[in-house]
Amino acid sequence: MNTKGDGLAKWHLFVREKDIQALDEALAENVLFHSPVLWKPKAGKAAAMLYLSSAASVFEDFVYLRQFTGDHAVVLEFSARIGPFLVKGVDLIQLNAEGQISDFEVMVRPAKGLQALATAMAQQLALATSPENEK
Amino acid sequence: MNTKGDGLAKWHLFVREKDIQALDEALAENVLFHSPVLWKPKAGKAAAMLYLSSAASVFEDFVYLRQFTGDHAVVLEFSARIGPFLVKGVDLIQLNAEGQISDFEVMVRPAKGLQALATAMAQQLALATSPENEK
Repeated sequence: MNTKGDGLAKWHLFVREKDIQALDEALAENVLFHSPVLWKPKAGKAAAMLYLSSAASVFEDFVYLRQFTGDHAVVLEFSARIGPFLVKGVDLIQLNAEGQISDFEVMVRPAKGLQALATAMAQQLALATSPENEK
Repeated sequence: MNTKGDGLAKWHLFVREKDIQALDEALAENVLFHSPVLWKPKAGKAAAMLYLSSAASVFEDFVYLRQFTGDHAVVLEFSARIGPFLVKGVDLIQLNAEGQISDFEVMVRPAKGLQALATAMAQQLALATSPENEK
């Protein structure tokens, strides 16, 4: 089955349906994930999947707003909520020649929302990577 | 003189040459400015000019990277430095029917860079609005 060439469609499927298989197919093996909190990117599909699926658990009322098109790349603007904190954000998504996501960068405002996201993500990542979860 | 219809060109002129007149012409009178730090936008050209010109003083090594096109809107990705802190960011720029900037939203990562920006901006704004500066 040809699952390449539609990384962006697979990404939207993941966001809409929490379909982890779609996320796996959306991402290139060597994808770089740039968190809104930390400078240093996480390299590789496993790390990106962990962060992106954790983020999907953490954001409430997540809605995409405007879309912007670049050179084999898009910016997806979103609004969401982290507990009581409203946030705005962007996903900067770069596609490789095969149409898979090779670079995924997230930025979020305002500062209080970013802090709340950092706290919530740390908790979610601890949960996702705890030994009890490895069945 | 017709100065409308080219808000984005005027914006780039301001960034390149620190031309305050170009910034004034780029912005709609009722422009909303959304800071990366605070949720609540600043309304009106005077406030937007204060924040955008202060930001231009605060960012070092400012360079635009990828550009993304939307519906009468663009996203301009940038990299810059705040003292020792590297930052990435985006300007989300919405144009009105006259081609002037009606909405300007900034997002910055990572968290340490955003904190450094907040501190530097507070200092710059205090300087820009101090009574001694009102000659």
